[in-house]
Amino acid sequence: MNGQAPLCPEVLSQAAIAGLITSLPAADQAARAQAQAREPMLTKPAGALGRLEDLAAWLATWQGQHPGTVEAPHCVVFAGNHGVAAQGVSAYPPEVTGQMVANFQANGAAINQLCRANGIVLSVVALDLDHPTADFTQAPAMDEAAFVAAFGAGLRAAAKAADAGGDVLCLGEMGIGNTTAAAALCHALFGGTASGWTGPGTGVEGEALSNKARVVAQGVALHKPAASDALDLLRRLGGRELAAIAGAVVGARLNRMVVVLDGFICTASAAPLEALVPGALDHCVVAHKSQEPGHALLFAHLKKEPLLDLGLRLGEASGAATAVPILRAAAACHAGMATFGQAGVAEKGEA
Amino acid sequence: MNGQAPLCPEVLSQAAIAGLITSLPAADQAARAQAQAREPMLTKPAGALGRLEDLAAWLATWQGQHPGTVEAPHCVVFAGNHGVAAQGVSAYPPEVTGQMVANFQANGAAINQLCRANGIVLSVVALDLDHPTADFTQAPAMDEAAFVAAFGAGLRAAAKAADAGGDVLCLGEMGIGNTTAAAALCHALFGGTASGWTGPGTGVEGEALSNKARVVAQGVALHKPAASDALDLLRRLGGRELAAIAGAVVGARLNRMVVVLDGFICTASAAPLEALVPGALDHCVVAHKSQEPGHALLFAHLKKEPLLDLGLRLGEASGAATAVPILRAAAACHAGMATFGQAGVAEKGEA
Repeated sequence: MNGQAPLCPEVLSQAAIAGLITSLPAADQAARAQAQAREPMLTKPAGALGRLEDLAAWLATWQGQHPGTVEAPHCVVFAGNHGVAAQGVSAYPPEVTGQMVANFQANGAAINQLCRANGIVLSVVALDLDHPTADFTQAPAMDEAAFVAAFGAGLRAAAKAADAGGDVLCLGEMGIGNTTAAAALCHALFGGTASGWTGPGTGVEGEALSNKARVVAQGVALHKPAASDALDLLRRLGGRELAAIAGAVVGARLNRMVVVLDGFICTASAAPLEALVPGALDHCVVAHKSQEPGHALLFAHLKKEPLLDLGLRLGEASGAATAVPILRAAAACHAGMATFGQAGVAEKGEA
Repeated sequence: MNGQAPLCPEVLSQAAIAGLITSLPAADQAARAQAQAREPMLTKPAGALGRLEDLAAWLATWQGQHPGTVEAPHCVVFAGNHGVAAQGVSAYPPEVTGQMVANFQANGAAINQLCRANGIVLSVVALDLDHPTADFTQAPAMDEAAFVAAFGAGLRAAAKAADAGGDVLCLGEMGIGNTTAAAALCHALFGGTASGWTGPGTGVEGEALSNKARVVAQGVALHKPAASDALDLLRRLGGRELAAIAGAVVGARLNRMVVVLDGFICTASAAPLEALVPGALDHCVVAHKSQEPGHALLFAHLKKEPLLDLGLRLGEASGAATAVPILRAAAACHAGMATFGQAGVAEKGEA
């Protein structure tokens, strides 16, 4: 971040977080205009690089620099445990959250290979794994203190990435039971049906899947009437890693990093920000379309179009890390291509 | 290629080429079986890496090694000039083919930036640019000698990449007028309507687009009845860079390299091989879905599903180069991830 100290406001209450979200930095229109002025000069037919052209302008706009860069992508995976896992909503036991964190630390998981392959700096933030959130069918998942602490961990992780020179921030999660939390959060935020938002997650099916949808419905029935706003729904139905992702999205915006959201859970974690303040996710791109059925529903509500559709449903930022080379391609073409004038190439219609 | 001399048969006739295509190396079932045996042991829910899992098995199968690798991707862009350009089918003058080749050589084009960003070795093969093929509305685009020479240039380019240790071969093209050639070739091979296969290319529209479709129809009416087989259609309606791409696809198969096909023209160039021998493109993946409308039609005929859909329509292997990191991601996860046993992670249902 050009040697500036990263921005990491200390948040002490849910109200302070809401205040932060309602005063996010705006787009850099000057950087956007520079990108839009350069694009038609490059040696290709107008529009021939499709979405890569849009991404180049988007990078400039939200990094506040032209040309935008993908020189130091960072990835943060947040992990949390969920009381609702006791309701039999996952095909895996809750111990797997901690085991997978150990696997991340030992470089054995998919995300480790993807970050290495794509030149991404990986951090893993385990959030109080020994203390699962409360079962949301009984009580709010988090009290205010737990929610604020988790959100703050996300803010700090983004600031740390910015301090290390990061220009792109990939976000992801690990937490047995967290597709249930994400489905409940989306159902509460956007309506629809509990079963429409509920998918197999790590692989539940049949009666277990029906049970999962009932758990989602039960949580929403309990908390939606009581919640004060979208952020309060995140506290009541989410989990520590979901709150941290929301915090990291805000932290990235404060520090002029663009964000690559991963799959259903990660996108759901960010959704309350957009519900609270339209445009709050304008510095975010969704990496891929997850196999989890709720993800496609979310795109319509958030007006996002994923970059990839490869049938992934792993989480742990795997889709986000896989999409980074697309951003890198966009930045490389925009900054590095010759103009028609430089290359002596005839333009359209110049016979 | 393990220090073996690359396979580069000298082709002296169209019949010799047809013979080569009917005796292509088969899949390595042992390598495929090794990939399929390892996949379920990796620390993720079964199937959670979606298409990346399929790609890992495909790499092993067609490289004839387990694990498959994406360590030395090569890219070859073939350029040719087309007599049919005189029919006013392009928005750009024919001189642009040579100007863009100079731009490739000066590192100014999109493909240069994409190859550098993704660690791909780029070669450009300009095919007799001073001698455009014949206008196919009047005569066959190439005589047998010209066709065999161009196909042979593709075979040699693939062998050269293999000799340099290449494991993945991206193919692409440059040639003002070549969407017209590709549309005619597809229309002749697969039927449908001339206007269904004809798109804007570099940006023709309105009456110019209708004219382009008429030119396509005229070429097909002239050559389809006279052609002896799919390869002969490639000679009559294609161009030097289209024939060279077909040659490179065959050369890659002989040398156990997998192929990443680019957009509409590149995929159309390979299509005669599949029309001649079903399965001839099993070692090829299509990088992306081009904006050129004929591309989506081709997928159904070739039973291919593109990796990316980013609205690209540039050619010059730009989509192929953009897709390489997806193959790299697949190879990295398959080879590098810990197994459940290694990581001490509980498997599904192990509560």
